[in-house]
Amino acid sequence: MPPGMRADARRNVARIVAAAAEAFARHGAEASLEEIARSAGVGSATLHRHFPGRQALLEAVFRERVEELCERARELAGTWEPGPALVGWLRAVSAHAASNRGLAAALACGAADGDPEFGRGCHALITAAGMELLDRAQAAGAARTDVAITELLTLVSAVALATETGSAPAADADRLVRLALEGLAPGR
Amino acid sequence: MPPGMRADARRNVARIVAAAAEAFARHGAEASLEEIARSAGVGSATLHRHFPGRQALLEAVFRERVEELCERARELAGTWEPGPALVGWLRAVSAHAASNRGLAAALACGAADGDPEFGRGCHALITAAGMELLDRAQAAGAARTDVAITELLTLVSAVALATETGSAPAADADRLVRLALEGLAPGR
Repeated sequence: MPPGMRADARRNVARIVAAAAEAFARHGAEASLEEIARSAGVGSATLHRHFPGRQALLEAVFRERVEELCERARELAGTWEPGPALVGWLRAVSAHAASNRGLAAALACGAADGDPEFGRGCHALITAAGMELLDRAQAAGAARTDVAITELLTLVSAVALATETGSAPAADADRLVRLALEGLAPGR
Repeated sequence: MPPGMRADARRNVARIVAAAAEAFARHGAEASLEEIARSAGVGSATLHRHFPGRQALLEAVFRERVEELCERARELAGTWEPGPALVGWLRAVSAHAASNRGLAAALACGAADGDPEFGRGCHALITAAGMELLDRAQAAGAARTDVAITELLTLVSAVALATETGSAPAADADRLVRLALEGLAPGR
């Protein structure tokens, strides 16, 4: 949000983004903008003044999710042991991917309409947040040293892709991510 | 192949399927049928007599891959220790998925034109072959007992999906499948 924005305008933007997040999660990226305005308690004109197109609204929702994940990484790094912090964060990324799959695809497809740097920027933020957690876990001997954060994030998004059409995508994804991080050997 | 087929017809069918496998792997499911006939050394009429449409040819190639994987499972069960046999087979499935991704998608999309039972039949064969290897590995204490073969196969196909657009899909997929089977802990 622009720093000079008035308090009531800020409140409107926050309400619109929250309503949009819910609508996109429930109906996918094609959710009705009019219904989003209605459930945010603002007029369509207000929504369009802040978000000139669907792409801008998708980006705002996605950026908020990315910021939440970066914030979550900092929290976990400050309070959990290095190994569980990394695993807990990757599971949070998985939950995010499971509930925002359509959103991510829509952003990728619509990239020509939106900010071309946007996807790369989000990717860089997530990678940097995860790299800190992986570095800590590796330094503590809680994670193998021959694995890169990009590999772990690819595994997480692979699982999100493969489970998104099932009846319980988030639960299936969480189960498979834990399996992939724990491995096949017994006794863990 | 029908049991009563003459020897020269059998040879033609085998040559067409081999040429089609190579063409689909190189050019995807839209590979030219005329070029397939040409590199098999048969006329287009012969190809169409044995395979009335593209879908039939895709199915023949895919079925052959599935049979190879089932045969590989039997070989590994007979010669390798239970744990490495399971891991080796899952890596073989991954290599298959990496080189046949477009093929599998084309079969799924074209299912209405082809045999509707085909996909389910292939899936059942692969699952049964893998289940035997997993049962053996679990009985030998080489694999955790709370994992199902369908979960392992979903992980493998998830990785194939996520790596197919990279510059080295088969190598990337193999690396990630091994990572998922070994897990994040150091010292393996």
